[in-house]
Amino acid sequence: MNTRVLLDRRPDGPVTADLFRLDQVPVPEPGPGDVVVRNVYLSCDPYLVGRIQSVFPVGEPVAVRVVGVVHRSANPAWPEGTIVWGFLAWEEYTLVPGGRGLTAVDPSLGPISHAISVLGMPGLTAYVGAIELGRPTPGETVYVSSAAGAVGSVAGQLARLAGARVVGSAGSAAKCAHVVDVLGFDACFDHRAVASIGAALDEHCPHGIDVYFDNVGGETLDAVLTRLRPGARIPVCGQIATYEEAGDGLRNIGAMLRQRATMTGFSIYDHTHKLPAFLPRMSRWLREGAVVYTEDIRHGIETVPDAFVGMLRGDNIGKRLVQVSDDPTAG
Amino acid sequence: MNTRVLLDRRPDGPVTADLFRLDQVPVPEPGPGDVVVRNVYLSCDPYLVGRIQSVFPVGEPVAVRVVGVVHRSANPAWPEGTIVWGFLAWEEYTLVPGGRGLTAVDPSLGPISHAISVLGMPGLTAYVGAIELGRPTPGETVYVSSAAGAVGSVAGQLARLAGARVVGSAGSAAKCAHVVDVLGFDACFDHRAVASIGAALDEHCPHGIDVYFDNVGGETLDAVLTRLRPGARIPVCGQIATYEEAGDGLRNIGAMLRQRATMTGFSIYDHTHKLPAFLPRMSRWLREGAVVYTEDIRHGIETVPDAFVGMLRGDNIGKRLVQVSDDPTAG
Repeated sequence: MNTRVLLDRRPDGPVTADLFRLDQVPVPEPGPGDVVVRNVYLSCDPYLVGRIQSVFPVGEPVAVRVVGVVHRSANPAWPEGTIVWGFLAWEEYTLVPGGRGLTAVDPSLGPISHAISVLGMPGLTAYVGAIELGRPTPGETVYVSSAAGAVGSVAGQLARLAGARVVGSAGSAAKCAHVVDVLGFDACFDHRAVASIGAALDEHCPHGIDVYFDNVGGETLDAVLTRLRPGARIPVCGQIATYEEAGDGLRNIGAMLRQRATMTGFSIYDHTHKLPAFLPRMSRWLREGAVVYTEDIRHGIETVPDAFVGMLRGDNIGKRLVQVSDDPTAG
Repeated sequence: MNTRVLLDRRPDGPVTADLFRLDQVPVPEPGPGDVVVRNVYLSCDPYLVGRIQSVFPVGEPVAVRVVGVVHRSANPAWPEGTIVWGFLAWEEYTLVPGGRGLTAVDPSLGPISHAISVLGMPGLTAYVGAIELGRPTPGETVYVSSAAGAVGSVAGQLARLAGARVVGSAGSAAKCAHVVDVLGFDACFDHRAVASIGAALDEHCPHGIDVYFDNVGGETLDAVLTRLRPGARIPVCGQIATYEEAGDGLRNIGAMLRQRATMTGFSIYDHTHKLPAFLPRMSRWLREGAVVYTEDIRHGIETVPDAFVGMLRGDNIGKRLVQVSDDPTAG
């Protein structure tokens, strides 16, 4: 059987695990040209909140990025056993009509789970935001919120490779220790433990902020604005603080003018053509230890709702994935 | 005698004419190497508000851009009669130690008053914001606030030259008629007469906004944010609505991420090196009628406080100047 995680109803407030329900259907059969993927790693991403609120159809499995193995194939381009990633769903098996949208995963680049984390869109997102839009230079100060997260953890390390001093924030002392001790950030503060974000930024970025890699929006962004250095850049990758409730308005936007700053919202879908050039570079950084990546993997399809909602509340260190079947490359 | 306009005290609310007072001192004498300029055209600019609030010394003449004529010179580089512009002051004569900071004005490029308007920083500001940062393309929709003002009037015309459809807003029916009939914008609405900025934008920019040339900030910016098209650009030139009172916070910044938009605050002081290349180009556009420029000139040093405060309240059409002595090039 194929166990699936369906969106059962839309939230009218914060996203909770009871918005989802499990069901079981027979494992799909491929028609002519089709492929059935046995899913191995399912992604849990903050951006899904907006789609759960208004896009995904109720009563259907939630569409997410998945790494899997071709289980049955009626398509010679996708032999059984091929490792692939694609937009599949929170379920154990996915029927892929015509094999469309699948991409082969090269296991020589790293663990296959990385194809939906550091060697996939989250890693490329960090690269585009931190390097292409942030343009950090040696001696500059870069601040990254959600520094222990799937994207922020890489963004900060890339900024350090570019010679910047990198300060992070995260939601627990354990995360901050990870960010400094394992990821090598210069400093990290626990945004839940400080008197105010502004005071913490004054302490850790005493000369101001040249680049803010924004993962959270809201009051953190407002506090950053008054601490920008001239010519500052703010790549906006996510604003998780505002996804579930609007919060107060932004009061300090005038700093953009005073400091001649640039804020750029970006979506990785505008940059996917850069993936082929990015993958070997990031693979080498990982192999050489220049970038360290952590995945926070839960196990079993039935854990998906809690794994996802827990990630939204910040209980993950690194990229939250759910493994739902055996990884054929695992040692 | 030299009549001057002094900053008498700092505002604790909106800027009013009674913050300034006139005095008279002897016309200055040049020491060795010095130049005394007879001022002809004095500038009145919105950005002065911030400096009046906290930078300019109380009891001194207000420093502004001025076009004048070298009146007495003890510096062979600046012969008497030379037409110049520089950061001088709201006064009839200014002593320029060593002639430092003066720039010669070429009367063949246009009226000499233009050296502090369309053939000076306001014109270059419009060019950098509308063209270099806005990057309008044919078929795109550009919205310009303060469309009848010193900068906005040029910004919109340059965007039209680039093939965009250009919508303006201004503070009276007479200004809107000027913006459409004289400046050639495609449409203009009176922001004081519409039910809401948002509704007016929906009417005049029904397909959304690709470029917003921001002169005002505040609720106008917030209304624009929810109407951005994907990849929109927001050059922030000024935020006059927020200079005297903070207003409400910005509620719609999340649109920056959803629409992958870029907001760039800029200061013309980062771009002054572009002036030599800009001047002949803009001079030609003016000569050919591709750009039309209006100056709103008051007369007499004693009118400066009212001319400045009136401009802040929007009583000008085009660039507000005060002429305080004869223009030697006037026919």
